[in-house]
Amino acid sequence: MPSFKLTVSYDGTGMVGWQRQAAGVSVQGLLEDALAELDGQSVTVTGAGRTDAGVHALGQAASVSLARTIDGPSLARALNAKLPLSVRVLDALSVAPSFHARFDARSKTYHYRMWNGEVVPPFERAYTWHVPGPLDVPSMAAAAAIFEGKHDFAAFQSTGTEPVTTTRRVLSASVHVASRSGASEGLARSAGVLVVFEVSGDGFLRHMVRSMAGTLVEVGRGRRPSGWVADVLRSRERSRAGPRAPAEGLFLVRVEYA
Amino acid sequence: MPSFKLTVSYDGTGMVGWQRQAAGVSVQGLLEDALAELDGQSVTVTGAGRTDAGVHALGQAASVSLARTIDGPSLARALNAKLPLSVRVLDALSVAPSFHARFDARSKTYHYRMWNGEVVPPFERAYTWHVPGPLDVPSMAAAAAIFEGKHDFAAFQSTGTEPVTTTRRVLSASVHVASRSGASEGLARSAGVLVVFEVSGDGFLRHMVRSMAGTLVEVGRGRRPSGWVADVLRSRERSRAGPRAPAEGLFLVRVEYA
Repeated sequence: MPSFKLTVSYDGTGMVGWQRQAAGVSVQGLLEDALAELDGQSVTVTGAGRTDAGVHALGQAASVSLARTIDGPSLARALNAKLPLSVRVLDALSVAPSFHARFDARSKTYHYRMWNGEVVPPFERAYTWHVPGPLDVPSMAAAAAIFEGKHDFAAFQSTGTEPVTTTRRVLSASVHVASRSGASEGLARSAGVLVVFEVSGDGFLRHMVRSMAGTLVEVGRGRRPSGWVADVLRSRERSRAGPRAPAEGLFLVRVEYA
Repeated sequence: MPSFKLTVSYDGTGMVGWQRQAAGVSVQGLLEDALAELDGQSVTVTGAGRTDAGVHALGQAASVSLARTIDGPSLARALNAKLPLSVRVLDALSVAPSFHARFDARSKTYHYRMWNGEVVPPFERAYTWHVPGPLDVPSMAAAAAIFEGKHDFAAFQSTGTEPVTTTRRVLSASVHVASRSGASEGLARSAGVLVVFEVSGDGFLRHMVRSMAGTLVEVGRGRRPSGWVADVLRSRERSRAGPRAPAEGLFLVRVEYA
């Protein structure tokens, strides 16, 4: 059975997320339906991670095995011809049948995008969290650095989830104001800046990045000092962290493999 | 009567354009309805230019006079509270009652954005014209330069329109590959480049920028040499120019006043 690693980008607006649900449009559902048509049988697609409703991806990874023989570029073209323009297969790479997009992933990188200004440009409305008012980005960056390393992130997972372990390794975590050098090409002209929280790690708990982002904004708004993040982390209590940031600012940027 | 110059950004996707129509959502209609609510009477908004259905604006300008006394920042905030997030008032500047957004405009600048690559990133699907295949950008730039100066642009207007004169002055016209320096902030990761046609002029005929863009792509695809554009211009015949490029790639970037 020819197997493939798919790299998929999607605009999650209005979708129920990666995972197929009883109702609503999911990325997995769209991919599986398109693949089933191509393959003449039902097909299961495994994603590296399950992005939630409304979350976007620049480079989600997924694995799939097919019955028919096809090369990667032809598969990508055939899928893109069937998928809506909101979901694009950027690459289909032939892999060993043992390849598993979730189990084989070494790390993932997310961006959480915030628009800091009074007015959100229309072209950013579905891709940023609107955070008006003064925002202390250096303090947010200092707070983000506290996430780096191997920690128990129980305080940053959604209540109700029960993973085997809540320990994860964050490889890097930073906050910066996005370069305006490309602004003449960009679609954001209103007064304000794009603030990006970038985080890489060997795994993430449910809603972990959004809980981190919400916590960092508490610091950015001056409601808490940077060091408070270390207290929250140590507490392992979800109630101590900041509110969960909304889905539309979150992007799964890439999934790294060995 | 307090008068204002509004600077307005909008995502034209799904709208019938700037001008109020018998049916469909227009930017003028949204603004006039919001202003009428604020002012307690019907209000007329005059745009610097009428963008077509599906065309976007980073900085459309409009003039309006109100009965009630209000300052610019308060007006902008009040309007943004009523408007959908696809339309944002970036600025409301107090002006003399004689100010007229259309008649007083000295020049306008447009961007026509093209995605040159096999796969359009989901986040560019509503904001670019998909132009796959080899594209000779330097030849397009050479062809664009031919537009500069005072010319009769009859070959680049839509058939059926009858303005008094078809002579316009193009102040600058260029084509370039958008900087990728900001790519880590951007939402476009697929193989491909953003090609931007930027044009400023003292006025534009109906569909002129889109006809220019379609003509430049004929050159970029190698179907015509750069110099052909001069022949088209001289001919004054619409049938000689390239096809009209689609609305979604066009952005009114700014309107300049004295």
